[in-house]
Parts: sequence; C-alpha cells; structure tokens
Amino acid sequence: MDSTTTIAVASIIMAGLTTAIGSIGPAFAEGRAVAQALSSIAQQPDSSNTITRTLFVGLAMIESTAIYCFVVSMILLFANPFWNHLTQ
Amino acid sequence: MDSTTTIAVASIIMAGLTTAIGSIGPAFAEGRAVAQALSSIAQQPDSSNTITRTLFVGLAMIESTAIYCFVVSMILLFANPFWNHLTQ
Amino acid sequence: MDSTTTIAVASIIMAGLTTAIGSIGPAFAEGRAVAQALSSIAQQPDSSNTITRTLFVGLAMIESTAIYCFVVSMILLFANPFWNHLTQ
Amino acid sequence: MDSTTTIAVASIIMAGLTTAIGSIGPAFAEGRAVAQALSSIAQQPDSSNTITRTLFVGLAMIESTAIYCFVVSMILLFANPFWNHLTQ
Amino acid sequence: MDSTTTIAVASIIMAGLTTAIGSIGPAFAEGRAVAQALSSIAQQPDSSNTITRTLFVGLAMIESTAIYCFVVSMILLFANPFWNHLTQ
Amino acid sequence: MDSTTTIAVASIIMAGLTTAIGSIGPAFAEGRAVAQALSSIAQQPDSSNTITRTLFVGLAMIESTAIYCFVVSMILLFANPFWNHLTQ
Amino acid sequence: MDSTTTIAVASIIMAGLTTAIGSIGPAFAEGRAVAQALSSIAQQPDSSNTITRTLFVGLAMIESTAIYCFVVSMILLFANPFWNHLTQ
Amino acid sequence: MDSTTTIAVASIIMAGLTTAIGSIGPAFAEGRAVAQALSSIAQQPDSSNTITRTLFVGLAMIESTAIYCFVVSMILLFANPFWNHLTQ
Amino acid sequence: MDSTTTIAVASIIMAGLTTAIGSIGPAFAEGRAVAQALSSIAQQPDSSNTITRTLFVGLAMIESTAIYCFVVSMILLFANPFWNHLTQ
Amino acid sequence: MDSTTTIAVASIIMAGLTTAIGSIGPAFAEGRAVAQALSSIAQQPDSSNTITRTLFVGLAMIESTAIYCFVVSMILLFANPFWNHLTQ
Amino acid sequence: MDSTTTIAVASIIMAGLTTAIGSIGPAFAEGRAVAQALSSIAQQPDSSNTITRTLFVGLAMIESTAIYCFVVSMILLFANPFWNHLTQ
Amino acid sequence: MDSTTTIAVASIIMAGLTTAIGSIGPAFAEGRAVAQALSSIAQQPDSSNTITRTLFVGLAMIESTAIYCFVVSMILLFANPFWNHLTQ
Amino acid sequence: MDSTTTIAVASIIMAGLTTAIGSIGPAFAEGRAVAQALSSIAQQPDSSNTITRTLFVGLAMIESTAIYCFVVSMILLFANPFWNHLTQ
Amino acid sequence: MDSTTTIAVASIIMAGLTTAIGSIGPAFAEGRAVAQALSSIAQQPDSSNTITRTLFVGLAMIESTAIYCFVVSMILLFANPFWNHLTQ
Repeated sequence: MDSTTTIAVASIIMAGLTTAIGSIGPAFAEGRAVAQALSSIAQQPDSSNTITRTLFVGLAMIESTAIYCFVVSMILLFANPFWNHLTQ
Repeated sequence: MDSTTTIAVASIIMAGLTTAIGSIGPAFAEGRAVAQALSSIAQQPDSSNTITRTLFVGLAMIESTAIYCFVVSMILLFANPFWNHLTQ
Repeated sequence: MDSTTTIAVASIIMAGLTTAIGSIGPAFAEGRAVAQALSSIAQQPDSSNTITRTLFVGLAMIESTAIYCFVVSMILLFANPFWNHLTQ
Repeated sequence: MDSTTTIAVASIIMAGLTTAIGSIGPAFAEGRAVAQALSSIAQQPDSSNTITRTLFVGLAMIESTAIYCFVVSMILLFANPFWNHLTQ
Repeated sequence: MDSTTTIAVASIIMAGLTTAIGSIGPAFAEGRAVAQALSSIAQQPDSSNTITRTLFVGLAMIESTAIYCFVVSMILLFANPFWNHLTQ
Repeated sequence: MDSTTTIAVASIIMAGLTTAIGSIGPAFAEGRAVAQALSSIAQQPDSSNTITRTLFVGLAMIESTAIYCFVVSMILLFANPFWNHLTQ
Repeated sequence: MDSTTTIAVASIIMAGLTTAIGSIGPAFAEGRAVAQALSSIAQQPDSSNTITRTLFVGLAMIESTAIYCFVVSMILLFANPFWNHLTQ
Repeated sequence: MDSTTTIAVASIIMAGLTTAIGSIGPAFAEGRAVAQALSSIAQQPDSSNTITRTLFVGLAMIESTAIYCFVVSMILLFANPFWNHLTQ
Repeated sequence: MDSTTTIAVASIIMAGLTTAIGSIGPAFAEGRAVAQALSSIAQQPDSSNTITRTLFVGLAMIESTAIYCFVVSMILLFANPFWNHLTQ
Repeated sequence: MDSTTTIAVASIIMAGLTTAIGSIGPAFAEGRAVAQALSSIAQQPDSSNTITRTLFVGLAMIESTAIYCFVVSMILLFANPFWNHLTQ
Repeated sequence: MDSTTTIAVASIIMAGLTTAIGSIGPAFAEGRAVAQALSSIAQQPDSSNTITRTLFVGLAMIESTAIYCFVVSMILLFANPFWNHLTQ
Repeated sequence: MDSTTTIAVASIIMAGLTTAIGSIGPAFAEGRAVAQALSSIAQQPDSSNTITRTLFVGLAMIESTAIYCFVVSMILLFANPFWNHLTQ
Repeated sequence: MDSTTTIAVASIIMAGLTTAIGSIGPAFAEGRAVAQALSSIAQQPDSSNTITRTLFVGLAMIESTAIYCFVVSMILLFANPFWNHLTQ
Repeated sequence: MDSTTTIAVASIIMAGLTTAIGSIGPAFAEGRAVAQALSSIAQQPDSSNTITRTLFVGLAMIESTAIYCFVVSMILLFANPFWNHLTQ
C-alpha cells in the first residue's frame, strides 16, 4: 500500500472506532443518571424542578465526552492534517 | 490489493462495526431508563406525567450517541471522502 | 484474492457480525424493561395501562438500535455501494 | 483458495457465528422476563392474565432480534447474493 | 488445502462452535426460569398450575434459540449447500 | 498436511471443545436450579413434591442443551460425513 | 510434522483442555448446590432428609456434564478413531 | 512504509484511541456522581445547594482526566513533535 | 522439531495447564461450600453433625473434578499412549 | 523502519495509551468518592464541612495517580531521553 | 532450537504458569472461608471450636488443589520424564 | 533494529505501561477508602479525628504501590542499567 | 537465539510473571480476611482474641500460596536445573 | 538481536510488568481493608485500638506480596544472574 492509502485506511478505522467506543461510556452513564432521576422524582415529587435541572446539567457534562469522540472522528474524516499534508 | 479495494474493505468493516458496537451502550442505557420509569410509575402513579416527560428527554439524549454511530457508518458507506478522492 | 472476492468476503463477515452483535444489547435491554414492567404490574395493577403504554414506547426506542444494525447488514448484502461500483 | 471457496468458507463461518452469538442475548433476556413473570404471578395471582399477555408481547419483541440473526444466517447459506453472482 | 478440504474443515469447526456457544445462553436462561419457578411455587403453592404452565411456555421460547443453533449445525454437517455444490 | 489429516485434526479439536464449552452453561444452570429447589423445600416443606417434579422437568430441559453438544461431538468423532467422504 | 504427530498433538491438547474446561462449570455448580443445601439444612433441620436426597440427585445431574468431558478426553487418548485409522 | 507515513498512521490511531478510551472512565464516573446527587437531593431537599456545589467541583475534577486525554489527542494531531521534526 | 519433541512439548504444556485450570473451579466451589458450612453451623449449632457430614460428601464430589484433571495430567506425563507409541 | 522512526512511533503510542489507561482508574475512583460525599452530606448535613475537606484531600491523592500518567506521557512526547540521544 | 532446549523452555514456562494460575483459585477460596469463619465466630462465639475445626478441614481440602499444581510444577522442573529421556 | 533501538523501544513501552497499569489499582483502592471514610464520618461525626488519621495512614500504604510503579518507570527512562551498559 | 539465551529469556519472563500473577489471588484473599476480621472485632469485641488468632492462621495458609509462587520464581532465577545443565 | 540485547529487553519488560501487575492486587486489598477499618471504627469507636493494630498487621501481610514483586523487579534490573553470566 502506498502512503495515501495507508493513511486513509487508518483514518477510516479510527473514525469508526472512536465514535463507537465513545458511545459506550456516555450512554451507560446517561442511562444511569436518567434512571436515578426518575427514581428520585417518584420518591420526592416536590423537588422535581431541582432534580430535572441538575439532571440536565449532568447530562450535558456526560454528553461532552461523547462529543469529544465525535469531534475527533470528524477531524479524522474531514480535516485530517496528515491527509492534507500528503494530498495537497 | 490495490488502493480502491483496501479502502472499500476498511469502510465496509468499520461501517458494520461502528453501528454494531454503537448499539450496545444505548440499548442497555435505554433499557435501564425505561425499566426505572416503569418502576417509578408503579411507585408514584400520580407523577406519571413528569416521569414520562423526563424519560423521553433522557431517551433522546441516549439515542443521540447511537445516532452519532449510525451517522459515521452512513458517511463511511455513502459519503466517504477518501473513496471519493480515489474514484473521482 | 481479487478485488471482487475481497469485498464480497468483507461484506459477508460484517453482515453477519453486525446483526449478531447488534442483537445482544437490545435483547438484554428489552428483557430488562419487560421484566420490570411485569414486576410493576404485579405491584400496582391499577396502573397497568400506563405501564404497558410506556413499555411499548420504550421497546420501540430500544428496538430501533437493533434495526439500525439490521439495516446496515441488509445494505451490505443487497445495496453495497462498493460492490456495485466494481461489478457494474 | 479460489474465489468460490473463499466466499463459501466466509459464508459458512458467519452463518454459524451469527446464529450462535444471536442466541445469547435473546435467551438471557427471555429467561429474565419469564423468571420475573413467574415471580409476579406468585406475588399477584389475580393479575396473571395481564402479566401473561404482557409477557408474550415482550417475548415476541425479544425473539425478533434472534430471528433477525437466524434470517441473516439463512440468507448467507441459501440466498447469498455474492455466491449467486459467482456461480451463475 | 484444496477447496473440498477447506469447506469441510470450516463446516466441522462451525458445526461444533455453533452448538457449543448456542448452549450457553439458553442453559443459563432456563436455569434462571426454573429456579424462579421453584421459588414462586414455594411462595405461592396455590398458583402452582399457572406458574408451571407459564414456565413451560417460556422454556419452549428459550429452547427455540438453542434449536436454531442446533439446526444450523446440522445443516452445516448434513445439508451443506456449498459442500453439495462442490462434490456433486 | 494432507486432507485426511486436516479433517481429523479439526474433528478432534471441535469434538473436545464442543463438549467442554457445552458443559459450562448447563452445569451452572443446573446448579442454580438445584440450589433454588433446596432453598424452596426448606422454605415450604409441604410442596416438596411439586418442587421436585418441576425441578426434574427443568433439569431435563437444561440437560438437553448439554446433550446437543455431546451428540455433535460424537457425530464428529464417529459419524463424521466429511471424513467418511474422504476415507471411503 | 507428519500426519501421525499432528493428530497425536491435537489429541493431547484437546484431552487436557476438555477435562480442564469441563471441570470449571460443574465444580462451581456443585459448590453452589452444596452451599445452598447446607444453608437449607440449617434453616429447616427437619427436612434434612428431603434436602439431602434432592441434593444427591442434583449433584448426579451436574456431575454428568463433567463426566461427558472426561469421557471425550479418554476417547481422545485411548480410543481415538482417527489415530487408529492411521496407525493400524 | 516510509517514516513520514508510519508516524502519521501511529498518530492517527492514538489520537482516536486516546480520546475513545479516555471517555469511558469519566463518563461512568460522572454518571455515578450525577445519579447520587439526584438521589441525595430527593432525600434531603434542604441541602440541595451544598450538594449541587460539591457535585460541580467533583464533575470538574473528573472531567479533568477526560481533558488530559483530549489534550494528548490534539497534541498528536496538530502539535506532534516527532512529525514536526521530520517534515520541517 | 521432530515428532518426539513435539509430542513431549505438547504433553508438558497440557500437563501443566490441565492441573492449573482444573484447580480454579474446585477451589472456588470448595471455598463457597466451606464458607456456607461455617455460616450454617453458627446459625444452627445443633445441626452441626448433619452439616459437617453433608459438607464432606459435597467436598468429595467437588474434589472429584479436580482429580479428573490431575489424573489426565499424570497420564500425559507418565502414561502417554502417543509417546509410548513413538519411543517404544 | 530506521531507529528514529521506531522510537518516535513507540513514544507516540505510549504517550496516548498511558494517558488513556491512566484516566480510567482515577475517574472511577473520583466518581465513587464524589458520589459517597454527596450521599454523606444528604445524610449528615451538619458535617458537610468535614466531609468536603476530607473529600478534597482524597481527590488530590487520587488525582495524583492520573498526574503520574500524564507526566510520563509528556516526558515521552517532549523530553524523551532516548529520542534526544539519537537526534542530538 | 534443538530438542533439549525446546523441552527445557516448555518446562520452565509451564512450571511457572502452573504454580501461578494454581495460586489464584485456592487463595480466593481460602480467603472466603477464613472471612466467613471470622464472621461466624463473631456471631456465635460458643461454637468457635466446631467452626475452627471445620475451617481447618476445609482449608486442607482447598490447599490440596494448590498443592496439586505445585507438585506438577516441581515434577516439570526436577523429575521431568521427557527431559530425562533426552538427556540420559 | 540494532541493539540500542530495541532497548530504547522496550524501555519506552514499559515506562508507559508500568505507570498506566500501576495507576488503576491504587486509584480504585483510594477511591474506596475515601468513600468509606466519608460514609463513616457521616455516621459517626465524633470519631472524625480517628477516621481521618487512619485514612491518611491507609492512603499512604496504598499510594506506596503506585509509587513503586512510578519509580520503576523513572528508572527505565533515566537510570536504565542496560541502556547505560550499551551507550557508555 | 542459541540455547543459553532462549532458556535465560524464558526463565526471566516466567520469574516475573509467576510472582506477579501469584500476588493477585493472595492479596485479594488477605484483604478480604482482614476486612472481615475488622468487621467481626467491631461486632463482637469480646472475641477479639479468638478472631485475631484464627485470622493469623488463615493469613498464613493464604500467604503460603504466594510463597509457592515466589519460591518457583527464585528457583527459576538462581537454581534453574535446565540452565545449570547447559552452563556447567 | 544478539543474546545480550534479548536478555536486556526481556528483563526490562518483565521488570515493568511484574511491578505493574503486582500493584493491582495489593492495592485493591489494602483499599478494602482500610475501608472496612474505617467502617468498623465508626461502628465501634471504643475498639479503635484493636482495630487499628489488626489493620496494620494485615496491611503488612498484604504489602508483602507487593514487595515480593518489587524485589523480583529490582533483581531483574540490577542483579540479573543471566545478564551477569553473559556480560562478565
């Protein structure tokens, strides 16, 4: 394989793997947070506002790690510095 | 293998693996959230509206990580920048 | 192996693996949700309507990730863009 | 190996693996759902009709992911598009 | 290895593996269901008829995934379409 | 290696592995069922007849998956169709 | 390696592995059953006869899967059909 | 592969893997912390201010390990000292 | 490697592995049974005779799987049929 | 590959892996400590000062192991003694 | 490698691995038994004699599996039949 | 690769891996100890001095294993006896 | 590699691995026993003498498996029979 | 690679791995013991002297397995008998 193909293959593989692995942790964590939020609302319906607000802040923090992975994946596909170096 | 075949094979493998791995985390997480929602409704039937609403927001957040994977998978199959570079 | 065979083999392997791996997560998640639904009905028979309705919405969400995998698998078998590019 | 043999071997391997892996998740999930159904009937014998009905709907949903795998497996063995392309 | 041997070896390996892997999930699931049935009978002896009936329906559903694996295994050994194509 | 040796080696390896892997699931499952049966008898001595009968039916179902594996293993050793094809 | 050596090595490896892997599941399962039997006797000393009898039947069922593995192992060492075919 | 390509491929692979693996731990940890915060608010609504404040400090500490990974990933892509040494 | 060496190496490796793997399951199982026996004696000192007797029968059953492994290991080292075939 | 490239590739791989693996343990541990701190504050609001102080000391200790990893990673990228030995 | 070296290397590797793997199971099992013994003594100080005696019998049974491994390891190092066959 | 490069690569890889693996255990252990300390303070605020003191002694013991790893890592990078033997 | 080097390398690798793997099981087991001893002392301070004595006997038994591993490791490094055979 | 380099590389790899793997078990075990000690002090403040003393004896026992690993690691780096044999 020549250089261009090798880099393209490595980018394709990592773009997929990064997004795939990066979806496991956040999905589990969000599932746990949402499940606990539902349990807490059932236990203390009067605090549902505070609970919902804290939940959304937490989901945003957790989602951020998924987004790091998606961003790296998009960089590898569409703004790959090594690919640009070779093809330009 | 020539360059075109190598990139095609890598794209096929990652398109499948990304969607497959990306379905594990969200599925588990949604199962957990739905199960807890059902438990909370049974425990506090009066709050079923709040619970259902929070559940749907949470499911949307969790599903988003599955959709990231599906989107990367579709990009690799139908809008692959490296494939387009070689075949155009 | 020539290009056609390589792509066919990769497509066959990923079509199987994607559906197989993609059945683990949703199956577990649906099992959990159904089990909790049954437990909730036994605990609060009066809310069985709300519980059943929420269960079905949840099962639909979880099944969707299994369907993403099945769709990718069918695309690889019957609408594979790389195979079509080579054989047409 | 020539092309025909390679594709045959890949199809045989994936036909077996897909069905085998695809039996793990649904079997566990059905076991969980059935176990919980039995527990719920023992806890609330009066709701055994609702429980049994919800159980059967749930088992059908879970079994569907096992059937996806079995279908892909049968397609690979008896309606393999790549095999047909080569041998016809 | 010539084509006939390769396909025979692949068929032997997958026939064994498919049945072996396919026995893990259903066995665990049936063990769980039976254990819960016994626990439920001890807890509610009066419902032992309903419990036993639901148990048998559930065991049949779970056993079906084991039978899918056994069927694929037998097809690979005694009705292998690729083997027939080569040896006939 | 010639064809006969290759098929013999594959048959030996799978005959062992199939029985070995196929003993894990059923053993665990039977252990669980027996343990729960003992616990149920201790909890409800009056139902020991129903419990023992349900246990034996369940053990038979679970043992069946172990027997599938043993049968495949014996077929590979003593009634192997591919071996017979070559040596006869 | 010639054919005789290859088959001897495969038989040695599988004879060991089959017995080794086949001891894990039954050992765990018997440990679980015995532990639960002891717990049940302590809980209900009057039923110690029924418990002991059910335990021994259960242990016999579980031990049978270990014996399947031991039998396959002995067949591979002392009554190997492929070895006999070559050396006789 | 020449030196430039090798380093580019290693950088691409590690940039993806580092971010992907680095998202698992923090995501789980944040999910756990958020879930416990929601549970604590439901248990002690009067302390929701202290709980929220401690939660945010903790999330910042946990997120820092995810950011270490993202920073190393960005260094490998855009400020790689070994790549600069070779290409400048 | 000549035939004698190959068989000797395979026998050495499997003799060690079989005993090693075969010690894991029984050790865990005996630990569980002993621990439960101690717990049961503390709970019901009057039944210590029945408990001790059942424990010893159970330990003998569990130890038997460890002894199967040790026996296979000794056969491979000191009564190996394949080694005897070659060196005699 | 020449010496310079080999060392560069090894440094890149370990710089990424060290930070990535090193983020798993501390993240989990901090999540556990923070979650328990929130639970303790909810349980004993009067001791929130002591709890917060102990939490911060503990987080500093845990973070130190993450920082060891980050430091080794930075040394490998920017102060690598073996790289300096070769390129100077 | 000549025959002597190969057998020596295999013996060294298995001597170490057998003892190492063989220490995991018994150590865990003894830890569990000892922990439960301490718990039982604290719960029923009057039965400490029976508990200690049963504990020692149990530890001897568990230690026996560790000793099997150690014995095989010593045989491989100092009384290896295959090594003696070649060097004598 | 010449000797110098090989030793440099091995040192780089182990320096990273040792610190990375060595951060997992201590981090988890410290997280557990800190979490339990917070729980104990909440449960018995009067003993917070004894608890904090015992916690710090324990953290020092646990941290020592992380420091062993870091020390070995630094020795491999900056005081490697094998590297010094070759380059001096 | 000549014979001397091969045996030296195998001895080095197994000396390290045997001690390393052999420290996992005993460490966990001792941690469990010590933790339970502390819990038992807190629960029954009057029996602290019996508990401490039983704990020390148990720790000695558990430590013995770690010492087996250390002894094998030292034999491989300083009294290796195969090394002595070749170098003397 | 010549003999000196091979032995140096093996020693470097095992020195790192032994310390790294050897830190996991003791760290977890010490974390467990310390956590339980803190819990016991909170539960029975009057026995804090006995608890602390037993804890320190236990930590010394556990730390000893970590020290075995560290000692083997130092022997491999600075007193390696095989290295000395070749370089002296």
